[in-house]
Amino acid sequence: MAKNIFVPNPTSVTVDCVVFGMDARSSDLRILLIQRELEPYRGRWALPGGFVRFDESLAEAARRELDEETGLVGVFLEQLFTFGDVGRDPRGRVISVAYYALVNLDEHNPQASTDARSAAWFSVAEAPKLAFDHQGILQTALARLKGKLRYEPIGFELLPAKFTLSQLQRLYETVLEGPLDKRNFRKKVLSLGLLVDLNEFETGVAHRAARLYRFDETKYKQLKKKGFLFEL
Amino acid sequence: MAKNIFVPNPTSVTVDCVVFGMDARSSDLRILLIQRELEPYRGRWALPGGFVRFDESLAEAARRELDEETGLVGVFLEQLFTFGDVGRDPRGRVISVAYYALVNLDEHNPQASTDARSAAWFSVAEAPKLAFDHQGILQTALARLKGKLRYEPIGFELLPAKFTLSQLQRLYETVLEGPLDKRNFRKKVLSLGLLVDLNEFETGVAHRAARLYRFDETKYKQLKKKGFLFEL
Repeated sequence: MAKNIFVPNPTSVTVDCVVFGMDARSSDLRILLIQRELEPYRGRWALPGGFVRFDESLAEAARRELDEETGLVGVFLEQLFTFGDVGRDPRGRVISVAYYALVNLDEHNPQASTDARSAAWFSVAEAPKLAFDHQGILQTALARLKGKLRYEPIGFELLPAKFTLSQLQRLYETVLEGPLDKRNFRKKVLSLGLLVDLNEFETGVAHRAARLYRFDETKYKQLKKKGFLFEL
Repeated sequence: MAKNIFVPNPTSVTVDCVVFGMDARSSDLRILLIQRELEPYRGRWALPGGFVRFDESLAEAARRELDEETGLVGVFLEQLFTFGDVGRDPRGRVISVAYYALVNLDEHNPQASTDARSAAWFSVAEAPKLAFDHQGILQTALARLKGKLRYEPIGFELLPAKFTLSQLQRLYETVLEGPLDKRNFRKKVLSLGLLVDLNEFETGVAHRAARLYRFDETKYKQLKKKGFLFEL
């Protein structure tokens, strides 16, 4: 444990995790929340997170808290923004470093444990009122996702291995908060060379079965590195 | 002053400011540094910054510290990243929220005051060895600038009101850390419709006087919002 020799203005530092997942069946963008077991905001839903320990880095704290509160491990967390407004936490001066991640929802079944009564996926559109300033943190994460989508392929982490163009379009529409023209979207997406046509069709649907695609991982990584502009 | 009721793992939180400026004469990308007056790293150059007070937000702290240590005011600071590795500060657990800004160097003549022996602009390429993990913070800011340049027009804040295409190219080359083809660069930049030809020429130069341009502010803001891809 590191020892503090000198602490002007002692402050508490927390981490909070915004974890997005996509429900393949409903094509719904979801967020992972926990129900608080402790005061303040006892019983209220919140982002998974907690206090940073003396002997761990910020990223380590985020991974540990996510695991402890939801059982999710092996998730790639990226730093989002640090929130430090005076009065954002009724307990005193608490500064929170927020992280975010995109995961495949089917692979991550949350399980509540320490400090959390329960953990569950909520539709972003129908999320409950969150504790602290977590609503603002969620909005910041959504804005980041929206910005990213213009310059990078997204979806690899969110969609199932095989997906339809409608599912991909629904993801873009959810993040961009608006409808996209179907023909234009397909033309644009297919022209990027990002997708591999699997020559397979979805099964167990009432409507006409749609064609299944997967991402070309090499091309996906290339575009992620090189950047592109997805003009809408 | 906010009062802390409950402080698990008291930590100190600082802000650090990476301020880039461009020397119009040498077309050199510069960084604003201060020389530390106090231990640790007494006498060493460092990023301007300091401890966050109880009664101010993180952004307020960054603005205050920048003013106190260098005399720079009215600078638009953007949050960069939060650095919180264990052992990054010999005084104990100190987490630093880094901010960055782009300024016109000619308009900002630094003046040292509290906690800083002196403040000065250094060429990024020839910066001295910095205190703490500030070298890493500087690298993160340079990488952010590099990423931004692909998708947004930059230079408005850095260049003088009237500038030559060579100055703009030099800025891009410095940020991208490599030479660009002059003809391609000019063609690309001019095709964006970002620049207004002033029909004026630089004065007081030994070589052939180059044409002066200014940014079209409306177009600049449009492109910043809409995004673009500057392919090199």
